[in-house]
Amino acid sequence: MKLETLSDLYLEQLRDLYSAETQIIEALPKMEDAASHPELKQAFREHLEVTKRQRDRLDQIFEDLGKSPKGVTCKAMEGLVVEAQELLKQGGERDVIDAGLITSAQRIEHYEIAGYGTVATYAEMLGRRDDHRLLGETLSEEKMADDMLNRIAKSVVNPEAMEA
Amino acid sequence: MKLETLSDLYLEQLRDLYSAETQIIEALPKMEDAASHPELKQAFREHLEVTKRQRDRLDQIFEDLGKSPKGVTCKAMEGLVVEAQELLKQGGERDVIDAGLITSAQRIEHYEIAGYGTVATYAEMLGRRDDHRLLGETLSEEKMADDMLNRIAKSVVNPEAMEA
Repeated sequence: MKLETLSDLYLEQLRDLYSAETQIIEALPKMEDAASHPELKQAFREHLEVTKRQRDRLDQIFEDLGKSPKGVTCKAMEGLVVEAQELLKQGGERDVIDAGLITSAQRIEHYEIAGYGTVATYAEMLGRRDDHRLLGETLSEEKMADDMLNRIAKSVVNPEAMEA
Repeated sequence: MKLETLSDLYLEQLRDLYSAETQIIEALPKMEDAASHPELKQAFREHLEVTKRQRDRLDQIFEDLGKSPKGVTCKAMEGLVVEAQELLKQGGERDVIDAGLITSAQRIEHYEIAGYGTVATYAEMLGRRDDHRLLGETLSEEKMADDMLNRIAKSVVNPEAMEA
């Protein structure tokens, strides 16, 4: 698809995020399994439910646009997920692996913070109020998820990884 | 390398960022060429110089650690760069392409914000004061670059893309 208008770019970016969310939904159960700290396992488990709702919001936006969510593969998320898998393959001390899982997850969150920040701005410019509200909700959730991972890292995981 | 200690993870993450910076140094001139707005071209040109200094800081840290910066390929940055290239291949209206370049660049910045946030925290925990200062400088620069891209998007590029 040639990018002739901001609406074209908006659609392209929404599809990129749809692909990203779908990949995250597949990756999170593996990250939960690999995590050792109960707080981190719980955070991944809860974020899976949040992520499913975020993809549902995108489905609703695509339905309103009368467009299919399919057609774009988010290559960046493929790379982010491969990085997380490679870390797990390396193996090592459980607290250090947990710290590594948190940094992988935070990179994933930041991809989404950048992506949703962009599409929320475009939705506003294009006068798509409902989309803007839905995308803004997801953006807030992603920022909260990043903050929560920071808290778990600083309060539990990193101090124990430091002792490893 | 097995991740047995926080120092192992710190080294691994520094190498990931070294690979990321190296890839960004290759990608930025192409992004500058592809951009149409002079403000955006200039931002990419200036960020190339900033990025080279950031890689120099990493070189200094590796020298202090007595370790090689090589050995890790940042797969996430590979995906981020491929996404930017694919957008350019699609072609379209110049203002819309510029808006797309900005969103690609912001995703790259956010990868680095997450990555440098992590290694700066580890440097502090490991008592590596000089590293912490250097990594903190880079982290501030990445946040400033993201803010500058926001300003260029909102003040010049997006309004013109909206008219396309």
